[in-house]
Amino acid sequence: MSHDKILPWPAISREELGNHKIFTLSRTVRRSPKGDREHAFFGLEAPDWVNVLAVTEEKQLILIEQYRHGTDCVTLEIPGGAVDRDEDPAEAGGRELEEETGYRPRQLELLGWVETNPAFLNNRCWTYLATGCSPDGKINFDPSEEIEVQLVDLSRFTELIQEGKIRHSLVVAAHDHLQRGISRGAPWVAEIFGRE
Amino acid sequence: MSHDKILPWPAISREELGNHKIFTLSRTVRRSPKGDREHAFFGLEAPDWVNVLAVTEEKQLILIEQYRHGTDCVTLEIPGGAVDRDEDPAEAGGRELEEETGYRPRQLELLGWVETNPAFLNNRCWTYLATGCSPDGKINFDPSEEIEVQLVDLSRFTELIQEGKIRHSLVVAAHDHLQRGISRGAPWVAEIFGRE
Repeated sequence: MSHDKILPWPAISREELGNHKIFTLSRTVRRSPKGDREHAFFGLEAPDWVNVLAVTEEKQLILIEQYRHGTDCVTLEIPGGAVDRDEDPAEAGGRELEEETGYRPRQLELLGWVETNPAFLNNRCWTYLATGCSPDGKINFDPSEEIEVQLVDLSRFTELIQEGKIRHSLVVAAHDHLQRGISRGAPWVAEIFGRE
Repeated sequence: MSHDKILPWPAISREELGNHKIFTLSRTVRRSPKGDREHAFFGLEAPDWVNVLAVTEEKQLILIEQYRHGTDCVTLEIPGGAVDRDEDPAEAGGRELEEETGYRPRQLELLGWVETNPAFLNNRCWTYLATGCSPDGKINFDPSEEIEVQLVDLSRFTELIQEGKIRHSLVVAAHDHLQRGISRGAPWVAEIFGRE
C-alpha cells in the first residue's frame, strides 16, 4: 500500500456567514495540496466545551435531566457547558457544575479531551473528574435552562449508556475516559471507589 | 431535592437560514413549558452519520488518515460518513468503508449509536463492527477527500486514543461501544480476537 503523505489544504478565502450564539458559521475555500482543485468547506467556530463527571462524598454520580433543542427531547447527561473566553477549562467545569447542580467539588482532575468533530468544528471538549462534591453551592440557570439533578450509583453509569438512557456522544466519550483511567489504575481510582 | 418533570419547549416558529451541504442551519423560537418566556435556538439538521470499526482477517484495525477542515489538521480516524437518504445505516457503513479504504467486510454488526450533540444537532451516529475485511473493493473518494489507510493491531486502538493520536469524539465513542461489548462478552468478541 502506498503511503502518500496527507497534507493540509491551504485556505484561499474565508467568509463569515453569521454569529449564532453558540457558534459562528463560516465558508472557507481551500486549495488541495497538489494545487489541482479548490473546494468550499462550511465550518463552525465554537468555544471549547467542558463536561464534568462529578461524584459526591457518598460515591454517587451527579446527572442532569434537561430539554435539548437539537433532538427536541429531554436527555440525561453529565453537567457541562462552554468555556468562557480567557477561562481555564477546569475553572469552567467547576463553574458549570455549580450553576447547573448546586454542587461544588473538593477536587477537579483532568480525565481527557476530544475534538468534538474535526470535520467541521474547531473546538475541543474537556472532561474533568470532580470528587468530594457537596451541595453547598448556588444554582444559576441560563434563561433557556431548566435542569433536574439525579444522583445515581457510579456503578450505574455504564448501564445507563448500555440501556440507551444516556446517548450524548460527548458523555459516552467521558465514560470512555473514565474507563481507560480505571483500566490503567489512575491515581484517582481509589478516590471514587473508596479507599478500603 | 424536588423532582419537577422536565418538559419539552414547544416550537412557536422555525426559520431555515441556509443549506450548507453537510447540514441545514435553522433558527427556532420555542416557548418554555411554563409559558413564561420564549427563546431562540439555533440548530443544525444533518443526516445520520455512520462509522465503522473494521477488522481484517489478520485482526488488524483499519484506520484512515485524512485532512479535516474543522480543525485544519490531519487526523487519524476510523472510516465513516453520512447515511444517504433512504439508505440503511449498515449499508452506508459498508459503502463508506469500501469507498474510503477499498476493504469489504464479510460481516457487519451494530455496536451502538449515539446522539451526536443533542444541544444543537438532530442526528445520530451509528457504529458498526466490520469483520473479515479484505481489500477486494473499489476506492472512490469524494472530490474533497484524500485518504491514506493505516492498518494497526486492534490492541493498539486504546493506546492511540490514550496517546492523543485519535481525538475525534465519535471515534472515542466507538471505542467505548467496543469496550462495553467486550466487557459484557458480546457474541462477536471471539470473531475479532480469534476463536482459539
